[in-house]
Amino acid sequence: MSDKFDVIVIGAGPGGYVAAIRAAQLGLKTACVEKWVDDKGATVLGGTCLNVGCIPSKALLESTHQFHNAQHADVHGIMTSDVTMDVKKMVARKDTIVKNLTGGIAGLFKANGVTLLQGMGKLHGNKQVEVTAADGSTATYAAENVILASGSVPVEIPPAPLTEGLILDNEGALNIDETPKRLGVIGAGVIGLEMGSVWARLGTEVTVLEAMDDFLALTDKDVAKEAAKLFKKQNLDIKLGARCTGTEIIDGKEVKVKFTDAEGDKEIIVDKLIVAVGRKPQTKGLLADDSGVSLDERGFIFVNEQCATGVPGVYAIGDSVRGPMLAHKASEEGIMVADIIAGHHAQLNYDVIPNIIYTHPELAWVGKTEQELKAEGVKVKVGKFPFAASGRAMAANETEGFVKIIACEETDRILGVHMVGAIASELIGQAAIAMEFCSSAEDLQLTVFAHPTVSEAIHEAALAVDGHAIHMANRKKR
Amino acid sequence: MSDKFDVIVIGAGPGGYVAAIRAAQLGLKTACVEKWVDDKGATVLGGTCLNVGCIPSKALLESTHQFHNAQHADVHGIMTSDVTMDVKKMVARKDTIVKNLTGGIAGLFKANGVTLLQGMGKLHGNKQVEVTAADGSTATYAAENVILASGSVPVEIPPAPLTEGLILDNEGALNIDETPKRLGVIGAGVIGLEMGSVWARLGTEVTVLEAMDDFLALTDKDVAKEAAKLFKKQNLDIKLGARCTGTEIIDGKEVKVKFTDAEGDKEIIVDKLIVAVGRKPQTKGLLADDSGVSLDERGFIFVNEQCATGVPGVYAIGDSVRGPMLAHKASEEGIMVADIIAGHHAQLNYDVIPNIIYTHPELAWVGKTEQELKAEGVKVKVGKFPFAASGRAMAANETEGFVKIIACEETDRILGVHMVGAIASELIGQAAIAMEFCSSAEDLQLTVFAHPTVSEAIHEAALAVDGHAIHMANRKKR
Repeated sequence: MSDKFDVIVIGAGPGGYVAAIRAAQLGLKTACVEKWVDDKGATVLGGTCLNVGCIPSKALLESTHQFHNAQHADVHGIMTSDVTMDVKKMVARKDTIVKNLTGGIAGLFKANGVTLLQGMGKLHGNKQVEVTAADGSTATYAAENVILASGSVPVEIPPAPLTEGLILDNEGALNIDETPKRLGVIGAGVIGLEMGSVWARLGTEVTVLEAMDDFLALTDKDVAKEAAKLFKKQNLDIKLGARCTGTEIIDGKEVKVKFTDAEGDKEIIVDKLIVAVGRKPQTKGLLADDSGVSLDERGFIFVNEQCATGVPGVYAIGDSVRGPMLAHKASEEGIMVADIIAGHHAQLNYDVIPNIIYTHPELAWVGKTEQELKAEGVKVKVGKFPFAASGRAMAANETEGFVKIIACEETDRILGVHMVGAIASELIGQAAIAMEFCSSAEDLQLTVFAHPTVSEAIHEAALAVDGHAIHMANRKKR
Repeated sequence: MSDKFDVIVIGAGPGGYVAAIRAAQLGLKTACVEKWVDDKGATVLGGTCLNVGCIPSKALLESTHQFHNAQHADVHGIMTSDVTMDVKKMVARKDTIVKNLTGGIAGLFKANGVTLLQGMGKLHGNKQVEVTAADGSTATYAAENVILASGSVPVEIPPAPLTEGLILDNEGALNIDETPKRLGVIGAGVIGLEMGSVWARLGTEVTVLEAMDDFLALTDKDVAKEAAKLFKKQNLDIKLGARCTGTEIIDGKEVKVKFTDAEGDKEIIVDKLIVAVGRKPQTKGLLADDSGVSLDERGFIFVNEQCATGVPGVYAIGDSVRGPMLAHKASEEGIMVADIIAGHHAQLNYDVIPNIIYTHPELAWVGKTEQELKAEGVKVKVGKFPFAASGRAMAANETEGFVKIIACEETDRILGVHMVGAIASELIGQAAIAMEFCSSAEDLQLTVFAHPTVSEAIHEAALAVDGHAIHMANRKKR
C-alpha cells in the first residue's frame, strides 16, 4: 500500500472529476483514478461527456447551425455565394475544443491538489482501491472514502455490430470526416436526433429508425408533437415502430439496414449507420468479489438518495447509478457526496433536473409532463405561449416553438415547464430556478422580465396559466 | 360627452397598451388613446419601443450580427465568398417586423375588447379626457380611472440640431439605408452603443462622443471596464469627456462635429451624426390646467410607489414617471395599475428590474452594483466566472465576458448580478427570478444547472462567491 487518501474517486468524467475537485476544495486529500489514455499513452480526463458526448456534439451542432444560417442569410439582406462546409476543419475545431477542455481539467486537478492516478480502478474490501495502469503494473491505495463514478457505455445491438467506418456508436459518429450522402440512425433519442441534425444540415439524407411507436415517448406530448413536425420540415425522416433486424456491409462501403415496421419487412442502404439506442452502466471490472457493493436488478450500482452504497464510506454517482444519465446530475451528485464526506449536510433535489435535446430548435424541460401529472390524478392548469408572438424572437428570425407551463390547479405551484425553442437550453434555467424555489405561476407573473427578450415567453406562459397572457388571445378568462 | 369608460389609457406604448389589455381582461370597459398616425393616417400602436426603439434596433442588431458571423464563419470550416449586406433589404426586414408587431396590438385590442381612440389625449378635471384627432376634431370622454402613459421623447441639444438625413435622433438612426463611411454618435448610452455597433459591423468608422469622463457610469465597474475593452476591439472609437460644442453641415452632405475634451478643442467630419444623449418625459399638451396632476421638479408626472398621481383615480406609468425608462418597467406598471383599479392587491418590485444593452457581447444586470453597495456600507462577497471557462461557450465560439454575482457577506443574499456575454440578455432572467425569491448565493449553488449550457456560468459564479467554483482556480478558499 503506497499511500492513504481521504477520498479516492474512480472515474474522471463529469461526476468523478467534479467530486474530486470539490473534495479537495473542502480540504480532503483526494485522488482520482482514470483508465482512459490517448494514443500517446497520456491520461484523458473528462469522460464520455467532454470527449465523446455533450461537448463535441455541441461543437458540431453549432458549426452546422452556423452553416445553416450562412445559407439562409439572405433574409437579413446578407448576400453570400457558394457556402460550403470543410468537414475536416469542422471536426478539427471540435477536437481542439475537446482538447482544451480536457486539458483544463488536468490544470484544475493541479490547482486544487487532486492526485491523478492513471489506470483501471477496482474496489476491494475495506476501501482498498487497486489501480491497474495501462502498462499492466498495479498499485493498491487505501481510502477513508471511495466514490465510484465509472459512467456508462453505449448499448450495442446484435443486428448492427459496430464496424469500423461504417456502423458507428456515439464516438465514431463524432469523427465522420466527410458528409455522407445517406445516413442511417438507429434510435430517435438525444444522440440520434442531435447527430441526425448535424448531418441533415449539411445535406445528408438522414433516416432515423425508432423501435418505439411513440416519438420521444417520455417527453411532454405537446413538445414531442411540435418537434416531430419541425424535424420533418428539416428532412429528418423519422420512422417510428421500426425495429432493426439486421445489417449487411456491401462491398465494404455501404450498409444495408433491414428493419421491420407495421407494414412489414423493409430495408434501406446508407453510407454510415449510427447506433444510438441507449447507454448502460459501466461496472465491468470495477468491483472485486469482496467489495461488498451490490448492483440493482438493472445492473446499476445500488445507492440510496444520498448516493451511499451499502458499504459505509463507499458512494457511487452518475450514470452508474439510478436516475437520468445526465452530466449535470452526475456533477451535482459528486458535489453532494464530497460535501457529505466533509461532514456537511447536503442533498440533491432530483425533482428539478433539467433535460435538453440540442436540435434546432432545442427541446428542454424540467419537472413532470402533463401526461405524468394526469396519470397521477393531479389537476393542472396549463399556460402556453408561442415564440411566434415574441418580438425578440421575430427580430432573431427564431419564431418556432413555445413555452408550456403546468401548474397545480389547487396550489398554483409550477410542476413542469416544457419548451421547444431556439435557445430553450438556456431558458430552461429560469424554470429550474423558479421550481427550485417552489414557485407558483403567480410568482412568475409578478416577476419583471426584460424586454425585448425571448425569456418573456416564460412570463407570458405563466400569465396564460390563468388566462392572462398579454400578447396572445387567451383561451379562457378569469 | 359621448361615452363613459371604466378606464381610459392615454398612450399605446408598452406601458399603455399592456395596461389597456390587462384592464379589459379584468372586465373593465377600457379605451386607449393614441395620437401617432402613419403617413396614410392610420393609428400606429406600440409607441417608441415597438416603432423606433427596442424592436427595430434589435432587428438591425440581429441582421448585422449574422453578417459578422457570416464573415467569420471560416472558424467553423464554413467557406463563403463575397459576403455583402444589402442595407435596404435589412431595413425593409426591420420594417416588416415592426409592422407585424404593431398590427398585432390592434388585433389584441380587438380580441380583448379595448376601444381605440385616435388622437391626442388631454386630461381635464373630474377625469374627463379630451381627444383631438389628427383631423382636428375633438371629443371628450369620461372615465372612472385614467392611466397616463405618454412616454418620453429624445432630448435634443442646441449644438447638434436634427437635420434631415444628416443629424438624426433614434428614429432617423433606424432608417439609414446605406452604410455610411463615417458615423458620429453623441452619447455612449444604450442607443449610442447599439446603433454604433450596427454600423461598425458593416464597416463604418464609428466615433462615439461621451460628455462624461466615466464610461457607462451607472454600470458595475467590472462590466464597464470589460465592455470598453471589447468595444475597442470592435473599432468603436469611444471618446470620453468629449462634449459636443457645435456642428456644421458641409455641402449638404457631411457633418463637421466640433467637440472639446481634456486636450482641448477638436473636430471630426462624419457622413451621419446620431444624437443619443437621453430621453425626457413627454407631457406636452397632456394635462389641462384643471387636471390636478402635478409634475415633479424634473418634469416627470408625480406618482407614488403604486403609480397613483395626487388625483384619485388618475395614475401614470412608464417613461413619464420616475424610475428607469424601460419598456418592461412600463408594462409591469401598467399591469399593476390595471390590477389595482380592478380591486386586486398589486405591487411592483422596483429593486429587481433587469437592464440590458444589446451590443455583442451583451451587457445585462439586475440589482445593485458593487460600487453602490460599498457606498452604502454593505459588506459583500463577490463571485466571478468567465465564459472562457464554459464548455458551451467554447462550442459556440462566444467566450467573451463573465458573470459576476454580489452577495451580502452577512446574509448571503444576492444583491446584484452583472454580466457581459453573448446572450446575457436571456441569462439575466435567471438572476432576476432568483433575486425575486430573495435567493442566497447558496441557493443557486444547490440548484441544478443543465450541462452544457452557458447558464452554468451563473452556477459557477454563485459557487465562486464562496471560493468554490469548480471550473476555475478560485481566489480564496473556505
